[in-house]
Amino acid sequence: MEIKELKKIAKDRMKGYCRLCKECNGIACAGEVPGMGGKGSGESFKRNYETLKNVKLVLKTIHDVKDPDMSVEIFGKKIDLPFITAPVTGNSINMGGFLTEAQYSDYVVFGSIEAGTFAMTGDSGNPQFYIDGLNSIKKANGIGIPIIKPRENMKIIENIKKAEETGAIGVGIDIDGAGLLTMALHGQPVGPKTVDELKELTSSTKLPFILKGIMSVEEAELAVEVGASAIVVSNHGGRILDYTLGVAEVLPKISKAVKGKITIFADGNVRNGVDILKYIALGADAVLAGRPIIWGAYGGGKEGVKLIIENLKEELKQAMILTGCKDVKSIDSSKIINLNKQF
Amino acid sequence: MEIKELKKIAKDRMKGYCRLCKECNGIACAGEVPGMGGKGSGESFKRNYETLKNVKLVLKTIHDVKDPDMSVEIFGKKIDLPFITAPVTGNSINMGGFLTEAQYSDYVVFGSIEAGTFAMTGDSGNPQFYIDGLNSIKKANGIGIPIIKPRENMKIIENIKKAEETGAIGVGIDIDGAGLLTMALHGQPVGPKTVDELKELTSSTKLPFILKGIMSVEEAELAVEVGASAIVVSNHGGRILDYTLGVAEVLPKISKAVKGKITIFADGNVRNGVDILKYIALGADAVLAGRPIIWGAYGGGKEGVKLIIENLKEELKQAMILTGCKDVKSIDSSKIINLNKQF
Amino acid sequence: MEIKELKKIAKDRMKGYCRLCKECNGIACAGEVPGMGGKGSGESFKRNYETLKNVKLVLKTIHDVKDPDMSVEIFGKKIDLPFITAPVTGNSINMGGFLTEAQYSDYVVFGSIEAGTFAMTGDSGNPQFYIDGLNSIKKANGIGIPIIKPRENMKIIENIKKAEETGAIGVGIDIDGAGLLTMALHGQPVGPKTVDELKELTSSTKLPFILKGIMSVEEAELAVEVGASAIVVSNHGGRILDYTLGVAEVLPKISKAVKGKITIFADGNVRNGVDILKYIALGADAVLAGRPIIWGAYGGGKEGVKLIIENLKEELKQAMILTGCKDVKSIDSSKIINLNKQF
Amino acid sequence: MEIKELKKIAKDRMKGYCRLCKECNGIACAGEVPGMGGKGSGESFKRNYETLKNVKLVLKTIHDVKDPDMSVEIFGKKIDLPFITAPVTGNSINMGGFLTEAQYSDYVVFGSIEAGTFAMTGDSGNPQFYIDGLNSIKKANGIGIPIIKPRENMKIIENIKKAEETGAIGVGIDIDGAGLLTMALHGQPVGPKTVDELKELTSSTKLPFILKGIMSVEEAELAVEVGASAIVVSNHGGRILDYTLGVAEVLPKISKAVKGKITIFADGNVRNGVDILKYIALGADAVLAGRPIIWGAYGGGKEGVKLIIENLKEELKQAMILTGCKDVKSIDSSKIINLNKQF
Repeated sequence: MEIKELKKIAKDRMKGYCRLCKECNGIACAGEVPGMGGKGSGESFKRNYETLKNVKLVLKTIHDVKDPDMSVEIFGKKIDLPFITAPVTGNSINMGGFLTEAQYSDYVVFGSIEAGTFAMTGDSGNPQFYIDGLNSIKKANGIGIPIIKPRENMKIIENIKKAEETGAIGVGIDIDGAGLLTMALHGQPVGPKTVDELKELTSSTKLPFILKGIMSVEEAELAVEVGASAIVVSNHGGRILDYTLGVAEVLPKISKAVKGKITIFADGNVRNGVDILKYIALGADAVLAGRPIIWGAYGGGKEGVKLIIENLKEELKQAMILTGCKDVKSIDSSKIINLNKQF
Repeated sequence: MEIKELKKIAKDRMKGYCRLCKECNGIACAGEVPGMGGKGSGESFKRNYETLKNVKLVLKTIHDVKDPDMSVEIFGKKIDLPFITAPVTGNSINMGGFLTEAQYSDYVVFGSIEAGTFAMTGDSGNPQFYIDGLNSIKKANGIGIPIIKPRENMKIIENIKKAEETGAIGVGIDIDGAGLLTMALHGQPVGPKTVDELKELTSSTKLPFILKGIMSVEEAELAVEVGASAIVVSNHGGRILDYTLGVAEVLPKISKAVKGKITIFADGNVRNGVDILKYIALGADAVLAGRPIIWGAYGGGKEGVKLIIENLKEELKQAMILTGCKDVKSIDSSKIINLNKQF
Repeated sequence: MEIKELKKIAKDRMKGYCRLCKECNGIACAGEVPGMGGKGSGESFKRNYETLKNVKLVLKTIHDVKDPDMSVEIFGKKIDLPFITAPVTGNSINMGGFLTEAQYSDYVVFGSIEAGTFAMTGDSGNPQFYIDGLNSIKKANGIGIPIIKPRENMKIIENIKKAEETGAIGVGIDIDGAGLLTMALHGQPVGPKTVDELKELTSSTKLPFILKGIMSVEEAELAVEVGASAIVVSNHGGRILDYTLGVAEVLPKISKAVKGKITIFADGNVRNGVDILKYIALGADAVLAGRPIIWGAYGGGKEGVKLIIENLKEELKQAMILTGCKDVKSIDSSKIINLNKQF
Repeated sequence: MEIKELKKIAKDRMKGYCRLCKECNGIACAGEVPGMGGKGSGESFKRNYETLKNVKLVLKTIHDVKDPDMSVEIFGKKIDLPFITAPVTGNSINMGGFLTEAQYSDYVVFGSIEAGTFAMTGDSGNPQFYIDGLNSIKKANGIGIPIIKPRENMKIIENIKKAEETGAIGVGIDIDGAGLLTMALHGQPVGPKTVDELKELTSSTKLPFILKGIMSVEEAELAVEVGASAIVVSNHGGRILDYTLGVAEVLPKISKAVKGKITIFADGNVRNGVDILKYIALGADAVLAGRPIIWGAYGGGKEGVKLIIENLKEELKQAMILTGCKDVKSIDSSKIINLNKQF
């Protein structure tokens, strides 16, 4: 199957929940939460798109990089490219329900592994979704990372224990889920976390602990302070707060502050291997993406997920050749022109 | 009823006078005065939209704000959120006439009160409209503020007296109505006011006196000088002069000049609770909105107005949690990134 | 007749040559020369629109300007508002031919006079068009200014003499017509002029001499040097050279260099009385407009031209009240915020 | 035939491969590679358009330039205007196949010569295409320049020898073809070149050697170092790497670094004679264009190519008159306002 065919099938199966627009920029689906869009005006989604678009590449072809090395090591595990599948749940309310949660998590966990990397799985108002993700990771001998909603600490710690039992590579919370007020209505309250609460979480496990949803230097530094192993610089695909900044514009300052002290993932509108190169050049250690992986899973199941990632790999390779980057370490700010204003 | 359903009904009842666009940005209705649009090219309306969109939020979730306090005190009266319903008249020429003036003012006055705040009512070329607003406020035991057009001082003072008789919380003029040349044709001349004329007005009453339509530091300072209790930073929804600046870009300087000396309201394209947080962070004490309240009244009468405001409240709460603001006082410039250039 | 009705008729009579778009911004008609559009990509037309849009007004209503004086004196003649009708020819190739040249020039010359100002008339590859304009001015006892294409000097001087015979207020050339290479094919070569050639022209007549088509400080200063009485800062409505700057962005520097030494007219996308105020605030003594006057002539003949100008007057009056300008002299840079970058 | 008619025919014959949009800006065809669009999001194509649009002309008409000299000398050969036809191949996969490669190269080689300039011809995954181009140049007694893909050096040197045999004016490689990973699948690997590899190429021939696809000062300087005679500042029409900078924004710095040491061609969205003037003013010695020449060849064969170039000539002449440039040497940065930010 080719990408084009895969997207056509995915579009059909997603029944308008995602339009698979030519340019995935948050305009058509603005406000569609639940759904695939950004919250409210959709500006946080659009901002990810725009600020990433503002990062340009410096074309270079007088050099000797003919076969770049794309591999990186994350939490001691070597992966083929600096890309990890983002945690996603809610197939029925967000994607139209062609897949069950269990199918979806199987496809992304195994498709990611077959493409030489791994997946994060998610959590939701329906606690079974977390279990579905865990089950997939368990079947994959722990090759995956479950991400938990910012529930009460006791509940999170329970979920961390379950993660440990699967042999997972790591575990984390998407702390930006703090604003999901409706989860309280289902008896599953979430909220922000204090430094002390976070310390309790990180010291509850020996697994690398990931804080997903960091968008400021201040909180990146707090993540280091509480003992997290990694942050995901992310505005949750623009789905939790309207009018945030874009990932590409906050990443350089965050990277300057904490690079080397903590692993930095970037997650915002990655659609192409070129985008991976951009975020690495802006300071990330690796990137995450959600929507393209959804297209893969809906359009082709496990094979579709694999195809999407293989395609990213091919595009990244070409971009590394055309900017003269022999390995991921070589991808630095000299390879890009960042047109985003810095604050 | 849900917001979505309410908007559908409102759209139907407004017969094209308002299209209830997905994004309320002044483009589709440009030039529709009378109607719901901005004057001329509609650029003053669009500028409110654009400059407010340029204000971004700093996502923060590592803190202890789980249940923020949204209340503020305005003229000694505590309200549940920093939001007041803006004065609006002209149901037949601007909104299509599904509601009478009396119905409209009843709906907004009582809907606002039931949502924990209060409404301003308006004035017009047809002087009965002012009386309709007063009647609603009177029935509500004075919980409301009538706003008078910048008529001849003698006429305004007469109208202030009538306002006092209703037990109103305050009274004011929308001085930016000065350009409504056609009101003179109906024997109701309006115009700008000198400092002395304004002093005569403020000293004619013990009620808090509001000057609505201030867009410069100079006039904000004059408002303090003449003894006004509050200003509304507003370009009248873009409906009186084409090509003005936007509220969000003039507010910070005005706030810097007069904050604490006078109450500052901001009025410009508030459509979401997030927008309330933005204007407070830019220096307002509270905000006003007109168009969404019209949708509420047209889509669901008093209950519709209440629903709109309750929704703003919910959105503001979520935004305060996700930016770490425990109360309205905590909403300051550190919570936003203001991308508007300052002059 | 109302403006709305007038435009409807004009649109019909112009048969698609002008679409009378809601926003007259050069987009729909880009490249339509002949026609009503800008040359090539239409960017010079669009730039006039955009740079004028970038000029914002400072709303002011605390003052005593209730009845502003809009009159100015041009070449010793007092006119009711700082507006002059721009020279236009080519009814059949540019406007669809509903009007003859003679009808058109009669309508604009007399319509302008009845509205309290006067018109310029034009010249063309067909030399009869110049005569048509002269005839109208002659019938109007010389109240008008003929503008000649930059032909060979001898030919221009002949035309100046004919202008003198009509008793015209002034005379001039649209020197930016220099690029009309096709006129040479009709035996009517045009081209740029040296300083000496221009001196020969200005010293050939006692009439005020106008240089239309100045877009730089350097050439504005040369206009003073050669003894011209006035310049028109203009890119010819974007119709002679693609990708020029906009009038609103070059005017301030030009005004700074030559104001007081020469009369400065501005001509670029004036569609509303507000635009007149903007150009005066940027440094012009008066403004010109072409396209809206064409709509007037096509939609309502002489009365239509008058209606358009009366409407500009009403809008200018309102804008002067709402910015606190008691007369044209008071309209200065403090009344605007100019968002155009200066080079 | 007129340009308008030519484009109509071309559009028909290109069967949607090119839409001949009113504004050729890379939007409609984004991602169409193969096809006529830019790679991926099409942003590299769009960036060429936008950054060239950001270059504005200073209108000047007070001077004595009535008949400008447009000629330049390239590699000792005088041409009538500073324009050369860009190398293009792939008629069947990119343009719809109405023309064969041999037809296409004949049309462009001879059409260019008849218009007073010459063409470059291309290379491709199908090595016959290179031969087709050579054949046309040979028939034209060597008036043309073949451009070779960045194959293995031995293969390139073979192709250079074949070029020499045609008596070609020069020879070169489009080094930005380095990212065409799929060529390896057809047993025709391409890739970047080291300084040493390039030196081997330049010293293998006495012909002027051209490096096409330079987008940075660093590589422009390396081009001088390796002994190239010319560079083409080009992002390959946006077709090899997504999100590069635009030609117009990198050209000034490159020109500042190497002007005079090497011939500088600029290639990016030239659609009009005005664009030629812009690139010369930004520092190029001459410009290249591809897409408009394709329209010429498809719409009118050899005559169509000639018509397109004659039209560019007429437009350039007019632009030189209206900016006061008496010859190509006079076209410098004083003739433009460059709104592109410099990094």
